[in-house]
Amino acid sequence: MEGFEKRVRDNFARQPFMTTLGAEMSRVQRGAVEIRFPFAFSLTQQNQFVHAGAITTILDSACGYAALSLAAEDHDVLTVEFKVNLLAPAVGEEFFARAQVKRAGKTLTVCAADAFANKNGEEKLVATMLATIIVMKPSA
Amino acid sequence: MEGFEKRVRDNFARQPFMTTLGAEMSRVQRGAVEIRFPFAFSLTQQNQFVHAGAITTILDSACGYAALSLAAEDHDVLTVEFKVNLLAPAVGEEFFARAQVKRAGKTLTVCAADAFANKNGEEKLVATMLATIIVMKPSA
Amino acid sequence: MEGFEKRVRDNFARQPFMTTLGAEMSRVQRGAVEIRFPFAFSLTQQNQFVHAGAITTILDSACGYAALSLAAEDHDVLTVEFKVNLLAPAVGEEFFARAQVKRAGKTLTVCAADAFANKNGEEKLVATMLATIIVMKPSA
Amino acid sequence: MEGFEKRVRDNFARQPFMTTLGAEMSRVQRGAVEIRFPFAFSLTQQNQFVHAGAITTILDSACGYAALSLAAEDHDVLTVEFKVNLLAPAVGEEFFARAQVKRAGKTLTVCAADAFANKNGEEKLVATMLATIIVMKPSA
Repeated sequence: MEGFEKRVRDNFARQPFMTTLGAEMSRVQRGAVEIRFPFAFSLTQQNQFVHAGAITTILDSACGYAALSLAAEDHDVLTVEFKVNLLAPAVGEEFFARAQVKRAGKTLTVCAADAFANKNGEEKLVATMLATIIVMKPSA
Repeated sequence: MEGFEKRVRDNFARQPFMTTLGAEMSRVQRGAVEIRFPFAFSLTQQNQFVHAGAITTILDSACGYAALSLAAEDHDVLTVEFKVNLLAPAVGEEFFARAQVKRAGKTLTVCAADAFANKNGEEKLVATMLATIIVMKPSA
Repeated sequence: MEGFEKRVRDNFARQPFMTTLGAEMSRVQRGAVEIRFPFAFSLTQQNQFVHAGAITTILDSACGYAALSLAAEDHDVLTVEFKVNLLAPAVGEEFFARAQVKRAGKTLTVCAADAFANKNGEEKLVATMLATIIVMKPSA
Repeated sequence: MEGFEKRVRDNFARQPFMTTLGAEMSRVQRGAVEIRFPFAFSLTQQNQFVHAGAITTILDSACGYAALSLAAEDHDVLTVEFKVNLLAPAVGEEFFARAQVKRAGKTLTVCAADAFANKNGEEKLVATMLATIIVMKPSA
């Protein structure tokens, strides 16, 4: 495993909220990250769809880690802001967020991410995000 | 309890993800809703701050319910999209999302919401959302 | 010229603000539209870059027309909201906005668009938009 | 006129696109700016409403200048991103954008802005923006 991948996976492993969602990091490349979780009743809203907040969480995390995969070794990332469009109900057995760096600047990185529901082996786009991440040395 | 409040609270009570977050609806008025949850380790990210996804979830829910509080009785709401700016680390004992309808249209309602952390009795603004909600009759 | 293209181009031709920007519609396909304008001093900000507002305007228009290209003949489109990330200074001889429908729903269409600056024959990504458009029969 | 106001007004005066829109800076305070323009046919879209792009432009500028009004003297501002919700057709004799700093950070400033149409002496909210601005020393 290369350095950037180890750094990303180690950071992910220290996020208790990812455990709460049952999420795992299914793919890490330079500038591209995929996170997924299986359906769980504990993540649903009133119509038994997965809550938009849970989908948004893995979209946000995937964006942050895609930015981190390109950052200098002693730098950390923080989400500045994001926008999400919810495109279809999150119905299925498994849910994926796939993020890609759109532009890595000196201070700010912009990522785009899509979320998919896998139902009976078919993938459906359920949400899309555009996010701004700040990359910086952690203050001591 | 008035009809709109009962409708909003009943709907909220049917969201398992709110239970997962430990969230409760702390205030319901026509066009304005507050949701809060106490700090929990299970909601944190790698720095022990509450995860932006958890804060976003109650901002989104508060916006949706603020829209629902003004909707016709046989109508339901669905979030179309939202944007969140994360303004400060979510550190504290309790977290609040307060949403207010900015404009209620025939089909679309726009809400603004702020999230606050309460730490040692002081409130700090940690995030802000601008959201679009669609109001419609559920299809049979 | 097919019906949808004629409808899109006729509508574009009735927008005086496009004339003010010197903009023209350079490509129309089902679900995808390109609008461009040449550099003009009248469109610049204090650093002689093209103003973000001018770039945003053609991104927004390209998104709206991409949605219109897929709409029923007696329907019109209206932008509900959009988000823009500005990625690089708008420096060059010509500027392009390219929009693509991401999901066309019954009422709402979501489009993504990128803006490019052409400088000395090279294209550079300068901005990206995610937009929500409502498609509906105009009220009489 | 105080230093910050002079700096903001001087910068504004160097934006040719503001002249193209017929815009003027009608109010400058620390952390709050208003920009307005009168109706002009050259700014309209196909329904004779003022184009969303023109409204967005003054919202964006008002946000940037609100951030600049709080910045250190040798710093400049650049819009990172913004989101706009269009709430009503821009119909009227005059249009205002009023921006307010929501949080001024060391590097990033978040502003909220509303746009109003003045028609027959009545103000109507037509759009709202949430924007992120970066504050930094210009590179030499």
